[in-house]
Amino acid sequence: MYVVCLDLETTLVPEFWIEIARATGIEELRRTTRDEPDYDLLMRQRIKTLREHGIGMDRIESIVAGVEPLPGAKDFLDALRAETQVILLSDTFRQFAHPMMEKLGWPTIFYNELSVDADGFIDGYHMRVDHMKLASVRALQSIGFDTMAVGDSFNDVEMIRASAHGWLIHGSQAVVAANPDIAHFDDYPSLLAAIERQLGA
Amino acid sequence: MYVVCLDLETTLVPEFWIEIARATGIEELRRTTRDEPDYDLLMRQRIKTLREHGIGMDRIESIVAGVEPLPGAKDFLDALRAETQVILLSDTFRQFAHPMMEKLGWPTIFYNELSVDADGFIDGYHMRVDHMKLASVRALQSIGFDTMAVGDSFNDVEMIRASAHGWLIHGSQAVVAANPDIAHFDDYPSLLAAIERQLGA
Repeated sequence: MYVVCLDLETTLVPEFWIEIARATGIEELRRTTRDEPDYDLLMRQRIKTLREHGIGMDRIESIVAGVEPLPGAKDFLDALRAETQVILLSDTFRQFAHPMMEKLGWPTIFYNELSVDADGFIDGYHMRVDHMKLASVRALQSIGFDTMAVGDSFNDVEMIRASAHGWLIHGSQAVVAANPDIAHFDDYPSLLAAIERQLGA
Repeated sequence: MYVVCLDLETTLVPEFWIEIARATGIEELRRTTRDEPDYDLLMRQRIKTLREHGIGMDRIESIVAGVEPLPGAKDFLDALRAETQVILLSDTFRQFAHPMMEKLGWPTIFYNELSVDADGFIDGYHMRVDHMKLASVRALQSIGFDTMAVGDSFNDVEMIRASAHGWLIHGSQAVVAANPDIAHFDDYPSLLAAIERQLGA
């Protein structure tokens, strides 16, 4: 019995920080862990930048509410949920992903949480557990499931390697080159077919 | 951050074995663990009874496809999924529950699996893990979630007691009397309000 664990951003939907950068015109918000490997420092810079520009949670909520799933993602997810159990594992935050979950038909998602101060500005974030994606597939395995995992980036590789089957989709050249043994797709029908082959095996 | 764990049968939908007994007219299929506490023996009797009556998986699939959620269950589940993460934890089987999951909008469900022989008769069952409901809430807690749990029967009490908050719904007199410290509801709006109070706390 399988649970298929899917990353969210770039895998099924656009990157929320990029969309926020685009909508606000704040170029610094395009920085990722590729530019600043220390995630906590990166997050503190983002929080500081938003406050300096007077961007509160209300504005962010209205931006993320306008983001749409990648073309074909909803059909892929609908087809997959009709065949097996699916959980989205994402390092993003509830406040960013919530409107997207309605658009995707309320799949189950494990994500993190931002805290907001009395003035409506983001003032911190709460991660439930270290290496959340890996820890989550191990927790599912501990109750008798096999897992399959799909993602696009370096922080998805752990859960892919810890799973019975796994794939990259929409991966950057760097992550694909660094993981030549993990099959990589750029379209959902090929990914769905690969998953279905394992479900039927 | 919460995951709300919901039992399925009697909690959200009718008991599948009772529906199969009703549709086939086979009274023995109404026997439950209240009549035969040894679950494995009960399941082997059910499998034998179905074969003796010539009831194969095809017939069962057409019966369970006709079962509808309890009145109000879909609205309750829709409202809850828009507010928090929900996973259904059920001791029933994929083959029984699958059509119902479509009717409920494909919530994530952890269930078990029947095996079917070459002639189309059920010939066994596979449980992923002992005390599945308790093991599942503990697995969720191990990755940093708090859990809430809701069910109707004695085999739900473990997950309710292991969770931060829990309730009975549609419980029998016996299970309610044996657990006077667990609040019991007979309607979804009261249950939803209780869950929302904890989500907002």
